[in-house]
Amino acid sequence: MTLPTDMTLIEITTPGGPEVLKPRQVPVPSPAAGEILIRVHAAGVNRPDALQRAGTYPMKPGMSPYPGLEVAGEVVALGEGVSAYALGDKVCALTNGGGYAQYCTVPVGQALPIPEGMEWIQAAAIPETFFTVWANLFGLGGAHKGQRVLIHGGTSGIGTTALMLCREFGIQAFSTAGSEEKCAVIRSLGAEAINYREQDFVEVIGEQGVDVILDIMGGSYLNNNLKALAMDGRVVLLGFLGGAKANDVDLRTILGKRANITGSLLRPRTPEEKAAIAGQLREQVWPALSAGRCLPMIDQVFDYTEADKAHARMEGGEHIGKIVLRVI
Amino acid sequence: MTLPTDMTLIEITTPGGPEVLKPRQVPVPSPAAGEILIRVHAAGVNRPDALQRAGTYPMKPGMSPYPGLEVAGEVVALGEGVSAYALGDKVCALTNGGGYAQYCTVPVGQALPIPEGMEWIQAAAIPETFFTVWANLFGLGGAHKGQRVLIHGGTSGIGTTALMLCREFGIQAFSTAGSEEKCAVIRSLGAEAINYREQDFVEVIGEQGVDVILDIMGGSYLNNNLKALAMDGRVVLLGFLGGAKANDVDLRTILGKRANITGSLLRPRTPEEKAAIAGQLREQVWPALSAGRCLPMIDQVFDYTEADKAHARMEGGEHIGKIVLRVI
Repeated sequence: MTLPTDMTLIEITTPGGPEVLKPRQVPVPSPAAGEILIRVHAAGVNRPDALQRAGTYPMKPGMSPYPGLEVAGEVVALGEGVSAYALGDKVCALTNGGGYAQYCTVPVGQALPIPEGMEWIQAAAIPETFFTVWANLFGLGGAHKGQRVLIHGGTSGIGTTALMLCREFGIQAFSTAGSEEKCAVIRSLGAEAINYREQDFVEVIGEQGVDVILDIMGGSYLNNNLKALAMDGRVVLLGFLGGAKANDVDLRTILGKRANITGSLLRPRTPEEKAAIAGQLREQVWPALSAGRCLPMIDQVFDYTEADKAHARMEGGEHIGKIVLRVI
Repeated sequence: MTLPTDMTLIEITTPGGPEVLKPRQVPVPSPAAGEILIRVHAAGVNRPDALQRAGTYPMKPGMSPYPGLEVAGEVVALGEGVSAYALGDKVCALTNGGGYAQYCTVPVGQALPIPEGMEWIQAAAIPETFFTVWANLFGLGGAHKGQRVLIHGGTSGIGTTALMLCREFGIQAFSTAGSEEKCAVIRSLGAEAINYREQDFVEVIGEQGVDVILDIMGGSYLNNNLKALAMDGRVVLLGFLGGAKANDVDLRTILGKRANITGSLLRPRTPEEKAAIAGQLREQVWPALSAGRCLPMIDQVFDYTEADKAHARMEGGEHIGKIVLRVI
């Protein structure tokens, strides 16, 4: 297999709106020890990409400046010491950035084999939301069979993945959204929909409360989230669409319910932590995907040179499920 | 053993200051199934007693209106099905209220044998703070050997107990207090003292952060507590001396550090939960107490008919360690 010397990737030319995403020619990267090089067929678009583009994501030293946190493609080169995959293997992977590109290197532990028969577009839509939901709803949140959970923003990539996994694992889910169309999607995924423009989610959930809340709103929802919790319930924060500061937080409710407020980011986790999550997904979730269940819901597919349009779609808030870039 | 029909207990005549605590003659209670009757020799005084007296403790239906959450004394009657103790056994116990009294019934699972040679006053000073510190610092907080923790208010009953158990279990402790005298006590318990009137605890703790914070301040400290945490650190709330509402809470720090805010109350826990904590204490902590280590630090002893003076002492904030009532 002969690799070209150069490739196209999408870069963030300067912090700003979707229009700052531009194609650029760069050398094809070489896989370091423990890495694989993937010829990318498709790349998923995620909210952290949009925050990174806008300059509001908390980038740490050493993080790649290029957008794109998940890809699907073929393994075309192996770094030193890699034996888990062979050239030509079809994988999807959580990247450390730079996924909007024709080629991308990833630590081998962050890749997973694509289940037989799954399309590139679907495979590229899996890693970021599945790693995120697994680490947060099931990991930090401890959600398990027989529990009740609340997923805010149930039609986002994270939301649809969370609802599918709840159904898969016998967890009763409630989920909020802002339109009847989105509520219908939530119901189709087996959850109870709450239209937040018309209903108070605390009232719908009622006295019994929920055991875990996966929240993307942050400040504006925190007190109501605490009210909606059952004893020993957990609020897992993933985003701050409603503000990153919380006011008038009722700490008595935390004590009274032994509540727990936590949250995490996926990108700053170490390769070892990401590999551990990958291992759990392969064991617990891959069998369902291989059987055709829990397949990611795709909103729209754009050519990767139109990443600007993909970001505008995400920020418009009308999307249902994942937005994906087609590279080949 | 012949029991009297009546006894003296201390009641809260009406919500208010320490002066509302008054002796009253009531019938000696009979132990229900699964309970023991204790002839009380000494009873510990705790902050929840003062909150209950002032009318600000979140009392639930079924809770005893009488103050007193811990006692030491002799077993003088056994409820149906109790075989763990015999008449005459010396025990200390977490009560469900009514400990400021000559006799008190408790669920048998909430009692623990008094280690050989320990005085009644010391034994009565153990249950509430040891159950609380165990369930929160070690349970919810997950503190363990090799970690670094911060204990706010290190000279309170809770604080001194937490610091002694940290030393016992190989945990490096920092602790705040508001006077040089109190800081000296903290140092004598093997911890690094921080005089909050002169030093900023976030600065003293520094970049490395602490793994667990046991906090009695609440709202006024929450943001600084988050700043002082290490990755995966936990803030365990126990009280609200600095307000029960938190403002301007920086949720980004929670995500960035995978921080965890939680807390609990001891009194509303079920007898089964309390018995489980007792079992862990007996296994993990009783050997140290039996060997004369981790003995509770006693501030002052009052006759139980002077419970008002004991409460005034606690609310004055000058005490160091536990305040105890002598009943016999």
